[in-house]
Parts: sequence; C-alpha cells; structure tokens
Amino acid sequence: MQSVKVGVLGLGTVGSGTVNVLQRNLDEITRRTGRNIEITRAADRSFDQEKACDTTHIALTTDAHDIVCDPSIQIVVELIGGTGIARELVLEAIANGKHVVTANKALIALHGNEIFAKAQEKGVIVAFEAAVAGGIPIIKAMREGLAANKIEWLAGIINGTGNFILTEMRDKNRDFADVLAEAQALGYAEADPTFDVEGIDAAHKLTIMASIAFGVPLQFDKAYTEGISKISQEDVKYAAELGYRIKHLGISKKTDQGIELRVHPTMIPDRRLIANVDGVMNAVLVQGDAVGPTLYYGAGAGSDATASAVVADIIDIARELNSDPETRVPVLAFQADSLLDTPILAMDEVITSYYLRIHTEDKPGVMAEISRIMGEQNISIEAIVQKEPETQGGIIPVIMLTQEVVEKNMNAAIEQIEALESVQDSVMRIRVESLG
Amino acid sequence: MQSVKVGVLGLGTVGSGTVNVLQRNLDEITRRTGRNIEITRAADRSFDQEKACDTTHIALTTDAHDIVCDPSIQIVVELIGGTGIARELVLEAIANGKHVVTANKALIALHGNEIFAKAQEKGVIVAFEAAVAGGIPIIKAMREGLAANKIEWLAGIINGTGNFILTEMRDKNRDFADVLAEAQALGYAEADPTFDVEGIDAAHKLTIMASIAFGVPLQFDKAYTEGISKISQEDVKYAAELGYRIKHLGISKKTDQGIELRVHPTMIPDRRLIANVDGVMNAVLVQGDAVGPTLYYGAGAGSDATASAVVADIIDIARELNSDPETRVPVLAFQADSLLDTPILAMDEVITSYYLRIHTEDKPGVMAEISRIMGEQNISIEAIVQKEPETQGGIIPVIMLTQEVVEKNMNAAIEQIEALESVQDSVMRIRVESLG
Repeated sequence: MQSVKVGVLGLGTVGSGTVNVLQRNLDEITRRTGRNIEITRAADRSFDQEKACDTTHIALTTDAHDIVCDPSIQIVVELIGGTGIARELVLEAIANGKHVVTANKALIALHGNEIFAKAQEKGVIVAFEAAVAGGIPIIKAMREGLAANKIEWLAGIINGTGNFILTEMRDKNRDFADVLAEAQALGYAEADPTFDVEGIDAAHKLTIMASIAFGVPLQFDKAYTEGISKISQEDVKYAAELGYRIKHLGISKKTDQGIELRVHPTMIPDRRLIANVDGVMNAVLVQGDAVGPTLYYGAGAGSDATASAVVADIIDIARELNSDPETRVPVLAFQADSLLDTPILAMDEVITSYYLRIHTEDKPGVMAEISRIMGEQNISIEAIVQKEPETQGGIIPVIMLTQEVVEKNMNAAIEQIEALESVQDSVMRIRVESLG
Repeated sequence: MQSVKVGVLGLGTVGSGTVNVLQRNLDEITRRTGRNIEITRAADRSFDQEKACDTTHIALTTDAHDIVCDPSIQIVVELIGGTGIARELVLEAIANGKHVVTANKALIALHGNEIFAKAQEKGVIVAFEAAVAGGIPIIKAMREGLAANKIEWLAGIINGTGNFILTEMRDKNRDFADVLAEAQALGYAEADPTFDVEGIDAAHKLTIMASIAFGVPLQFDKAYTEGISKISQEDVKYAAELGYRIKHLGISKKTDQGIELRVHPTMIPDRRLIANVDGVMNAVLVQGDAVGPTLYYGAGAGSDATASAVVADIIDIARELNSDPETRVPVLAFQADSLLDTPILAMDEVITSYYLRIHTEDKPGVMAEISRIMGEQNISIEAIVQKEPETQGGIIPVIMLTQEVVEKNMNAAIEQIEALESVQDSVMRIRVESLG
C-alpha cells in the first residue's frame, strides 16, 4: 500500500485535532483511500507542555524548517497561523516541491495570489478547505459541486463568535457587551475580539469564497467590513417585530457593475433557512444560475471540526500526489490564466434596502422633514413604524424599511437626517437582504 | 485545448436541462476546466415534438445504442430513467469503455452493485451526483468533503413533493389529500404519487447515501419504507403544540447492532435547522465524528437544478478521463475491496422515541389500562397530553411522547392498546428524533 508522509507545523488546537482525527479514524481513512497516510513529523514552538494529542509515533522538532526541508515529507500542513512565519514556511515548502494544506484564512486572503503562483510554477497543490467555515466542505462544494453554474451571489454566516452573540441577544434579550464578555469567558472569543466582532475574520473568508465563486484574484484590501458592536437590543426587537433577524453576513454578489464584497450586519426575513442558523454554527448560502439557492451548514471552528477539513484536504492530495497538474481542480476554481479583472465595487456603489432607526423628538414636522430628505435622495420608503414616546414629548424611535437604493444616496440622506435639530443620536442603519 | 465528447441518452426534463446548462455556461465551464466539453450526440424515443433545448449542433438519433457504441463518445449520460433499458445501456456503455453519468436513483439503488463491479473491471467512472437530492452536491460532500470522518448518521428530506405537502399542511391547515391534488396539478407529483408519498423514491436515495456513508453494498431491499398519507391535520397541530415539526425523513444510522435504513414521517424539534426546510426543497443532515452535524440544502428536483449535478459529474470526469483508476475517489467512497458486510437492522430492532395519538372514550380507567400496557413493554412516557372531549362523554385524543424503546416493544404495545374496548380507530404513531 502506498504510504503518504505528512509533516504538521503547529500542534495547537487545530494541529492536535488533525493528529487526533487522523489517528482515531485511520482504519476508516485507509479503507477510503487505499493509502497509508501518516503524520511522521510535527513542529511546535516548544514541547514543554503536554500536547492535546498522542505524539508517540511522531518525530518532533521546534524548528519548522526541518520539516519543510525534509525530503521524506510529501505534504506540509501549516497550522501556525498569522501571515509572517507561516507565509515563509509555506513558500519554502512549495519551493521544495511539497504540497501544502493550510487552515490559515488570513494567509490565503492576503498572500494567496503570491502563494498560488509559486505553487503553479512548482506543480504542487495548495489546499485550504479549513480556512473557510471550518468543517463545512464549502470550498469543494463551490469549486466542484457547483462547477456547472454561474454563481450569482453568496452570503455566509462565517464567524461563529459573532453569530453566538447575535443569537444570545435575540433569544435572551441580552446586550452585546454582556454576551461578548460571556463568549470570551467560554473561550469562543479572543481576548481581543476585534477580528471576530468587527468582521475582519469574516472578510478573510469572504475574500476567498468570492474569488472561487467568480474567478477573480484575491482582493482582501477591497472588502468592506462593518462589525456588530453597534447592534442594540432595540434593533434586535424591532427586526423581530418586522419579521426579520439580524445576522452578521459576508456577502459577495456579481452585478453588471462589478463584484460586491462586504461584511456587515444584515436583516434577513425570518423564514429564510439561513436566518435560523443559530449559536456558534456557520452556514453559507450560494446562489447558482442552474441549481438555484444551496446552503451548507456546520461547525465553523473547533479542534476536530476544523481538523475534519484539514484531513479531507490531505486525503485529496494523497490521491493526487503524482497526477498531472493539468488535470487537477484549479486552486481558485478557474484556470489561472482565466481569472478576470472584474472590479470590486466600492461600498458607495452597492445597492441594497435598509432598515433605519431614528431617535427624534416627538414634534410635529419632523416626519415631513425626514420624508423630504428621503425623497430628494430618491429613497422610497417601504414601511414606517413610529413608536409611542415613553414620556409625553419625549424621544421616539422611528423605524423605516426602504426599497433598494445605492449606498451613497443613503449616506447622504443619513447625514442630512442626523443634522436635523429634532434628531438625537446617530441614525442606526442595517442593510436588508431578501436572499431569495 | 482538449476536447471531451459527451452523448446524452434521453432529452426529457433533465436531458434538456443538461444541454441548456452546458450550452449557456460553456464559457464559464471552459474557464474552469481548460477543456472543451461538447454534447455531440443525443438520443430520444422520438423527435416529433420540439425539445426544450437547442439541438442545432447535436447529432440526434432515436437509437440510444448508436451513442453507446460510438467510438468518439467518451462520456455517456443516461437520463432515460427506469431500471430496464437504462440498465442495459449503462452496462453496454461500460463494456465499451465509456464513462457514465446518470441521474437514475432507482437504477443505482437496485443495480448499482452490478454496475459498479463492471465499471471497475473496465476502469471507467460511474457518477451519480444527480441521483440523490438533485442539485445538492451531497455525494461529493460525503465521499470527499467528510472523508476524514466516521459518519455516525444521516437524515434527509429527500423528496420535494412530500415536503411540499407537509409544509402546506402545517402552514395552511390543509389536509393531505387536498394538498396532494394541488401538487399533482402543479406538476410536482406524478399522476401515480406512490413513489413520492409512500417513500420509495426517498428510499432509493437513502440506500445510496447509506452505502457511501458507511461503506456497505447497496441494499435497497432492506430499507424500511413508510409514507405520509396517514398524517392528519390533527397530528400536525399536536406536533406544533409540543414544539415539533413533522418531516418525511430518510434516516440511516450506524449502531453497534447494525445499520438502520428507514424512511418514515418523523417528528423533530422545531428549532433544528432541518425542521425549517420547507416547500419542495431538500436537505440532508450528516453527523460526522469529527465535524459534528453538517447540513446540505437545495433543490432536489427540476430541470436546471438536476442538470447542475449532471454537468458537475461530466466536469469531474473530463478531468479524470485518463487518470489512473487507483487514484480516483471510489464509487461508494470506500475501496471496493474494503466494503463491509455490516447487517442492515430490521425495523423491529430500531430504537427511537415515539409520538402516539390514541382516540379513546372519555371513561375512567382507560389511562390506567394504557399506562399498564406501556409499563409492561418497558416504555417510559416522557409527556402526556389529554385533550378535552368535544362533547360530554365523547371521544378524546390522548397524546403521548415516549422515551426511547425498541420498535418491537412499541408494536406490541400498540396492538394491545388498539384491542382495548374504549380505544377507537388505529393508534397513530410517529417516530421522534432529536437529530442533535
């Protein structure tokens, strides 16, 4: 039986999971592949503390370069994270003719173009299923399963921490800060939660999915990113009253003008399946011209779940070790020389509907003023809800749903509304997508 | 650029869709594959009526054998349906060294073992993504995306007609017969709806998924099949009151005793994602030991949606035309010589929880009798709801949820309960699955 030798860089959460899953399911994996896949070497910064996996039969080193240069290693699995040393090691592995598996979304989103070009020169595979939506085989689904389709758009809940927070806010009427603190205590959120709650992690994943969906180079720097920290209990409640739920979505859509690439809180109708994806779970909705809407759901993080995707990539490569590179599925779904330079749309140019929450004094004439501004910006109002003030002559929330309008008009309208004397606080704006 | 020549057998709904999707998205597909995939020949029983696709550049024949024997054809796409001529043509194509794509679930479920053995002898590929859940790439997800996992169980809504009927019954308080008539008028359900509503179509698909999940030969004859025609508006309402929804599920589970293979109406908690899959849509929930629960959702039927899967298979084969068969993903996910003879459990031996609806006279002592019977069969009652009679001394419905028990005990209990003098009608039994 053919033996496949794998070296793992990084024995943290995902690295240990990879060792565990491969060891635990070795019989089953061998029955599937007809190959003997072995992790023969692993690197980590130190081995002072016990690892969360059995390393008895693995040669350990603190110098990852040892593995990247080892002629016996055919597949290097990069699970160090970050874009510094990880990038160097991946490029070195490729230069040494090794296939690479990585779970590193930042690395692919930021340096994928460079890495893929080098891999193509050397005829090696770079696989990164685990970089997007953890254990969900979304890269494979889009790249192969939907290969017959023109993909029209995709929308994903691709950060578990953010989805946990929004779910708790809705289910238990809790505030953002309160749930975030719990998520940190539970270990879902990092001490610095910026990457998660401000949408940067989601934008990494969205960037990768958009390139695969539309056949364009990776362009993380052009992604629009807006977090969920301003979502209030009030908005969650109004959304529910209107038949919507608020989710932190990564959305990419191909329009005649270009490709939208945006991460922001989004209101979606509550009967949409993706609106019912709760807690730390991830889901990606992909609209193909032939297949229609399809959705892929599962754990977006966690040791074993992410390892599931890492090991699936290892298995794929184990089959393709000696195949003609011409016959392989292209890394970004399209042949490298067929990638397009379709522009990424600036957020100003994106067209969506909006939910607006305006806090205003309960005075005659205010609504007329707001309506005038909306009209001047060509914004049609779909629905308007004016709440009772809590005290006589107090502040009232005005809730509006608008029809579709280009974002720059909405920005102008919001600026003018906020300048009105009767309007208090900032106007809260949440984009609304029907996703149907 | 390499040219790949495809012959299509059958230009009905899916055949026309396949021609349409491949023609419409040819540029995109060529950008993906770097190959020129052409349908050069097509067969149909007659060409008297105009087809729902453009056949200008396709050589047409009424004799499918022409195509199966044509040395220029590399991939034969069987879209005739049925298990008679379709089987002969597929075997003939294989014998002639051609790769085969089929959307024919009955053919694979009933004759897959024979077909796959012949294909292996000849070193050709048989692909059937479109046979299960239409456009959803569920075969690829299980066979490749989840290859690192021991799959523990799967549960699918894999018949759109049945799901449409159950959704309408719940949303609009309609009766089964009424919705079925509408589904037939809309063209969702066949004139003879047995295959759909009695679960045979679902059992075909479940049989295929179970073999791929657990690495066992196809065993359609051992599948348990129960339809939805006995579900009443009353049950739909009680399910909702108890926090459940009724779905027609295909379930396969690996237990220490063997593999469960069963299609029946199932009550599932209403917050489960799969409980919210409505209308004609399909979804499959797959539980892997590493990845946890994953769900795949999309259109299970329809011309373009099914063609999406057919064309994805053609693309996969176009890449693998000349590959070493040893390097290909095995047809049932596991190497042919590694399939197991794990037994399929008889329904009698399956363990689940149950919903029971018993119509009984409103007399003292009846509940004690029922409880005694349940106790004797070791059935623990989880919840019991006794409704008010509509008239004094009239018939009352007693609703019960039980804990897990082996089906044969439940069968015995039901038989005894039905024999009680006060009990009217048959006892309605719906199996309950937590799927979590």
